[in-house]
Amino acid sequence: MRAEIISIGSEITSGQNLDTNSQWLSRKLAEMGISTAYHTTVADDLEANIEVFRNASQRADLVLCTGGLGPTQDDLTREVMAQVAGVELIEDLESLEYIKSLFLKRGRVMPDRNKCQALFPKGSEVLFNEMGTAPGIWMKINRAWFGAMPGVPSEMFVMYEKQVKPRLGKLGIQGGVFVQRKINTFGEGESAVEDKLLDITKRGHVPEVGITASDAYISLRIFARGSNLQQVQEIIEPVEAKIRERLGDLVFGTEDQKLQDAVVHLLLEKRKTISVVESVTGGLVSHYICQVPGASQVYAGGITAYQNRIKIDELGVPESLIREQGVVSLEVAIDLARRCRLKFGTDLAVSTVGYAGPEAGDDPAKPVGTVFSALSFEGGETTKAHHWLGTRDEIQTRTAKIALNLARLYLMKL
Amino acid sequence: MRAEIISIGSEITSGQNLDTNSQWLSRKLAEMGISTAYHTTVADDLEANIEVFRNASQRADLVLCTGGLGPTQDDLTREVMAQVAGVELIEDLESLEYIKSLFLKRGRVMPDRNKCQALFPKGSEVLFNEMGTAPGIWMKINRAWFGAMPGVPSEMFVMYEKQVKPRLGKLGIQGGVFVQRKINTFGEGESAVEDKLLDITKRGHVPEVGITASDAYISLRIFARGSNLQQVQEIIEPVEAKIRERLGDLVFGTEDQKLQDAVVHLLLEKRKTISVVESVTGGLVSHYICQVPGASQVYAGGITAYQNRIKIDELGVPESLIREQGVVSLEVAIDLARRCRLKFGTDLAVSTVGYAGPEAGDDPAKPVGTVFSALSFEGGETTKAHHWLGTRDEIQTRTAKIALNLARLYLMKL
Repeated sequence: MRAEIISIGSEITSGQNLDTNSQWLSRKLAEMGISTAYHTTVADDLEANIEVFRNASQRADLVLCTGGLGPTQDDLTREVMAQVAGVELIEDLESLEYIKSLFLKRGRVMPDRNKCQALFPKGSEVLFNEMGTAPGIWMKINRAWFGAMPGVPSEMFVMYEKQVKPRLGKLGIQGGVFVQRKINTFGEGESAVEDKLLDITKRGHVPEVGITASDAYISLRIFARGSNLQQVQEIIEPVEAKIRERLGDLVFGTEDQKLQDAVVHLLLEKRKTISVVESVTGGLVSHYICQVPGASQVYAGGITAYQNRIKIDELGVPESLIREQGVVSLEVAIDLARRCRLKFGTDLAVSTVGYAGPEAGDDPAKPVGTVFSALSFEGGETTKAHHWLGTRDEIQTRTAKIALNLARLYLMKL
Repeated sequence: MRAEIISIGSEITSGQNLDTNSQWLSRKLAEMGISTAYHTTVADDLEANIEVFRNASQRADLVLCTGGLGPTQDDLTREVMAQVAGVELIEDLESLEYIKSLFLKRGRVMPDRNKCQALFPKGSEVLFNEMGTAPGIWMKINRAWFGAMPGVPSEMFVMYEKQVKPRLGKLGIQGGVFVQRKINTFGEGESAVEDKLLDITKRGHVPEVGITASDAYISLRIFARGSNLQQVQEIIEPVEAKIRERLGDLVFGTEDQKLQDAVVHLLLEKRKTISVVESVTGGLVSHYICQVPGASQVYAGGITAYQNRIKIDELGVPESLIREQGVVSLEVAIDLARRCRLKFGTDLAVSTVGYAGPEAGDDPAKPVGTVFSALSFEGGETTKAHHWLGTRDEIQTRTAKIALNLARLYLMKL
């Protein structure tokens, strides 16, 4: 059972609008156990549309289309489907009356150009549109079932739920349940993570396990299919357990969880408090922590010590230390974290220093991307030195994650 | 000249991630007068990829692909291009050395997995990746030129600009010119902004002007087409001038500029310095300012005074003021900003307090979404009280924008 989703419109191929319908439909199909192999977006061009629809009718079992059902000249879907199916367009009187009634409701007479919205390829079914004037079309062409819906998201959502989804059920093309499980890690690169999981991520493994990198988070996704939820859970659980065992403390959460969720959760659980002193990350560690509801119970506050004089005046870092080690150094990171912890009276404090660029610092041995982070706690500290490649934004966001991760790793061992 | 854009990855076809690369690339091609006829997204499946690439090589003149160039087993683009072109994969020593050097820079040895990233279809050119380990591929297959780039947006952006775009120029496949001009505003809602521009944003206006809202920024986009850049500029300029005249100080920038860019630019121009004290925004105002290269010249630093005791101990806000007015009040916002300005010795300071939710505060008269911001300067202050509807994240990001906007409006009048 292979699905294809087609979006129609030059406003999308030109880049003017972002297509979000395809993602929404893919998720809906996945919930029913139907996996999507292709998204295709095509401009408002008759020949290109015919080619795309013909191609889809040959390579997919189910094709959901959005767009091209309006009353204007660049709305081609009706005609395209008729041509690819080799049938004529015929008027549906019931649809025509309904469209006229919508205009009457607004105190207007239906313009002539809306008449074409009541035309359907012979042999197709009407998908009723309770939200607007464009009915959808349901028909089989070659090997595939086609469901054509309007491009306006609010109209499409309702038509999918009320008209298309029940038809998928009747066709018996639901494959039961399809579940994606996402496991999030931080601390190693994509290839280092995969090296620990080569037997699991290899092509053909059942269930399928994919690996993706997103801003220094490396995630594993387990895709499993079965006739019911319990069966799918039984497929996923042993694989998830194996992944967790192999990756150990690299794993910090699942699904949409971020490092800050893990840190705030651990702080609450272990009844510890934290404060933050930031240079290179400029407030981002603090912001990440404050994104988590309930952070105020464990997060006292923080200082962005951006200019050196703030590090000296507000935190009390000795000028001599900055002079001798350089402000971007492990020594200064540790001193900042220690002083911050004492100043704010918290159990823990994390610090960041570094060069985010684009301009380089004074020390050629410490190029843009050089960062240091420290976690201070009573009786000691842990630290991390790293060199990032990337933009200013990437260096800042990833360094903030390093700082959060130091706190997470420490808290996990308590 | 017909272009096709291919995105590769099951995380996109499954609906887990939203594809934004295709839109970005379509816009870039449009700027060069190249129109995109198709977007195709395909899962990490060898046969489906081969079919998609073969199809594109026959129906398009230019094909830009993103994704599938990583070091893992589900990265198939190298193999797919070689198979469709009917050539073998050969190792590029220079690329291999470069990838190794990237790992060395971080003090690590290249994992064996990454070796495959130095493999290229015979006869192709290497697209150098200065942002990461995945080089791109440039080659002609059947009638189409292919440019394969990484899926990570930051890597793709740079590779497109530095490697692909110059090659498009050399091929002579640019047509006329298509320019989109974006004007960004903050301070009023979408309909209030449009009310001032109804004659310009109406359908059929030449040039076309669209209006979009994104996280409290309202942007106007002017779309113009012509045979050369000068002609297009002459179409855009009078419309832009009219928009700026109507909207006045709501306009803070163009294209990708954000409020923090305007604020840092104004601070540099007027030779003023700023500091920040944040409660509800938790470090986000500070982070926004530090996103701007060169911020260290004008930004001293900031304090996230998240818990009340930090407001009292670190800033010296009188406990009685908090008790009498409530911590979420205009009075506390003003007091925080004043004390922050004196503490950090800056010309300006901004503050934020409020309730971001999801849990409500103690005062039923101040529901979730109630926020106050103040700007302190020598001799006075400006303030803004607002009530946002939305999620915790929306309340935080939008309130940070209110604080930046207070600074911008003040600096503009200096």
